[in-house]
Amino acid sequence: METKKFLLNEQQIPTAWYNIVAEMTNKPAPLIHPGTRQPLKPEDLYPLFSRAAADQELNTTDAWIEIPEPVREQYRIWRPTPLVRATALERALDTPAHIYFKNESVSPVGSHKLNSAIAQAYYCKQEGVTNITTETGAGQWGAALSMAAKHFGLELAVYMVKISYEQKPYRRSIMQTYGAEVIASPSMSTKAGRAIITATPNYQGSLGTAISEAVELAMSTPNCKYALGSVLNHVALHQTVIGLEAVQQMEMAGEYPDVVIACFGGGSNFAGLAFPFLRGNLRGKTDTRFIAAEPASCPKLTQGVFEYDYGDEAGYTPLIPMYTLGHNFKPANIHAGGLRYHGGGAIVSQLKHDNLIEAVDIEQLDSFRAANLFARTEGIIPAPESSHAIAAAINEALRCKVAGRGETILFNLSGHGLIDMTAYDRYFAGDLQNYTVSPEEIAENTRKLEKILGN
Amino acid sequence: METKKFLLNEQQIPTAWYNIVAEMTNKPAPLIHPGTRQPLKPEDLYPLFSRAAADQELNTTDAWIEIPEPVREQYRIWRPTPLVRATALERALDTPAHIYFKNESVSPVGSHKLNSAIAQAYYCKQEGVTNITTETGAGQWGAALSMAAKHFGLELAVYMVKISYEQKPYRRSIMQTYGAEVIASPSMSTKAGRAIITATPNYQGSLGTAISEAVELAMSTPNCKYALGSVLNHVALHQTVIGLEAVQQMEMAGEYPDVVIACFGGGSNFAGLAFPFLRGNLRGKTDTRFIAAEPASCPKLTQGVFEYDYGDEAGYTPLIPMYTLGHNFKPANIHAGGLRYHGGGAIVSQLKHDNLIEAVDIEQLDSFRAANLFARTEGIIPAPESSHAIAAAINEALRCKVAGRGETILFNLSGHGLIDMTAYDRYFAGDLQNYTVSPEEIAENTRKLEKILGN
Repeated sequence: METKKFLLNEQQIPTAWYNIVAEMTNKPAPLIHPGTRQPLKPEDLYPLFSRAAADQELNTTDAWIEIPEPVREQYRIWRPTPLVRATALERALDTPAHIYFKNESVSPVGSHKLNSAIAQAYYCKQEGVTNITTETGAGQWGAALSMAAKHFGLELAVYMVKISYEQKPYRRSIMQTYGAEVIASPSMSTKAGRAIITATPNYQGSLGTAISEAVELAMSTPNCKYALGSVLNHVALHQTVIGLEAVQQMEMAGEYPDVVIACFGGGSNFAGLAFPFLRGNLRGKTDTRFIAAEPASCPKLTQGVFEYDYGDEAGYTPLIPMYTLGHNFKPANIHAGGLRYHGGGAIVSQLKHDNLIEAVDIEQLDSFRAANLFARTEGIIPAPESSHAIAAAINEALRCKVAGRGETILFNLSGHGLIDMTAYDRYFAGDLQNYTVSPEEIAENTRKLEKILGN
Repeated sequence: METKKFLLNEQQIPTAWYNIVAEMTNKPAPLIHPGTRQPLKPEDLYPLFSRAAADQELNTTDAWIEIPEPVREQYRIWRPTPLVRATALERALDTPAHIYFKNESVSPVGSHKLNSAIAQAYYCKQEGVTNITTETGAGQWGAALSMAAKHFGLELAVYMVKISYEQKPYRRSIMQTYGAEVIASPSMSTKAGRAIITATPNYQGSLGTAISEAVELAMSTPNCKYALGSVLNHVALHQTVIGLEAVQQMEMAGEYPDVVIACFGGGSNFAGLAFPFLRGNLRGKTDTRFIAAEPASCPKLTQGVFEYDYGDEAGYTPLIPMYTLGHNFKPANIHAGGLRYHGGGAIVSQLKHDNLIEAVDIEQLDSFRAANLFARTEGIIPAPESSHAIAAAINEALRCKVAGRGETILFNLSGHGLIDMTAYDRYFAGDLQNYTVSPEEIAENTRKLEKILGN
């Protein structure tokens, strides 16, 4: 019988993360300070992030950064994660392609987000920080950071977008079980929150507002730092543990991927799986294709502009050189909440700009169709975000079928969907739809960028 | 650094289940046909179950029963499951004991129930069955059988206790995502259902009624069989894959358990972990203690009578020789829905009767206290059922602390609690309570047994 699942032992958990920037010929342009408009220095970030995270964010020289032993110890709760050959899905598609997925859904919180949450919490603890803050949309990141904060003995306040706070009570409860304080955003606890509540009493919140509240609380609280779950370079760095394991596991399987696929929101799970394989391309040793699967309703990589833009809606963060739909872009309310982000981050955007990676847009209904087929063949109900990667993998496998090509496809199952079942209910009830974004809307949103930056 | 997680590879998934009955000196008394009052023969069970399951149910001679290859192939989606050393919990308790847990929560449906669901669905498919039925309370078993039925191309109808159908929509949605038909019970689709709806229009259902409906549909539908998720011998048999893996993994850890613990409802996860270790005791090679952790609100092993009783409330099933609170016992509405069962099953009850295993009663609030400590140390939010095993393991670890004994404790984490977060919410809100059962109530319920059996 063919091997279905490729497992590593604990000793094979990577001992260093891979910092792809150090090996890129065209490195991303520098982050820009929002006040001074000068290239950002690590010390500009020290008030907000742990020093270690700030240094990693701007590190363009070290290709390998050691994973601290206490972080690896926590990783061992669920890592290494399995690499699985999707034999049943292959049979259902009748494709000559071999399909593999890296199963990040086996983490205690059900997604890959823990990989960076543990690292960020550890560095804060190491530096004597006592309190941390963050924001969360659908709640995956908030749940992960709650678990990590509890382990390292940090107090955590999570600003959760109000509509999610009300619609996704399970994720809220998970955070509370791990001991985190969860505040519906906008709230009365910050100036930013109070202002927006006063202006718009029934406002249901947005990720932009929640970021503003979390940042404000961190900046105004002694011994408190802020943590972010995607977009930034140090988050992508921590996630490379996914791909570094997968490289070893594909070797066990005796194959090398022709195509590597991950869903794309802020880029953390895509970077995590792809960068260690992309290293082979950068060194001229492999010729793998890399596909970021973004939602058609938020198509920054395929239809955005490559410009400097803020990371948040309110414009508090550094300016990031990236593909963006404009930081005021309002994505449709799709169920893949983790993919509703306007920008592609600095590294991935540069790679896309240099044609080292590709991107595709997946419609919401196609993502649920793919999720359903995956659940009924491989047995795992995927998160709505991960379903975008599955849809893209299916498209590639069907291309292989038509072309009669036995390619090897690898995708990231970034999380399971057991806490997203209302989305499936709505899909089966026929209540979901696709959303298109007009070129005019994107042009209108990105035109504002020029005024802000004075270009 | 100490190893935290002990992993097997796919080739180490057991190739045979362990049938402990074959090696018991005092075997359980035979099951009795509810109509003829004669010892049950396999053919009496053929109309209801697959022949293979019926034969296994009454097999008292073969200690090892081969696991069919297609079942092992499905097991490989998530098996072998990890054995984990609970180092963080040990530190929190400051105990010299070593605590290990077998992590069955990593299955795609979040619990051990798949181990038997896959086997039962496979045998039905092999025998040309096209439709199967079952009942489910909290939904763990129904979710598992839904996944298994879809894989083997069987149509499945699940009767879900009405109050759970309404209160646990996520589990219902999971079943529907796997393609199962889920019917709130009592329903209009069966005579049993119609009778009770007519008599009591707003009846919220019970497991007993749901079993009656599932059995009736199976018996009245061509080419249709029924599947049960616990209590019976063949279900316990399939679950021994848990303990057979754990035996190998404890050997990797270089330790042997002094105490083995699992929560106890119908017995499937307890039997699954315990029997392969109990084999050592039966052969005089080991002297391990085995503890079944049942809820204080449903204390059949500690306070029930050892008598013949029906497996269901309506009295359709064979009579089983077991510790029971009486088949009409109405357990309090605790959140560990999977433990609300009146009887101990034939094998476990005989073992308890012969003092080969022990049982303890865990109060609901203690189970949640233990769950909380476990979540905040080991990072995994446990199912309310599994939390009873954790509470018992903590009690043993604290006993070791007082006695200064470095014993080795092994418990089964039968499932995660990510779909049970409302229970945690209620615990944190102070809305949960303990439930006691009076000796009078138990005496009253079990006195009826004598009349039924004409003793």
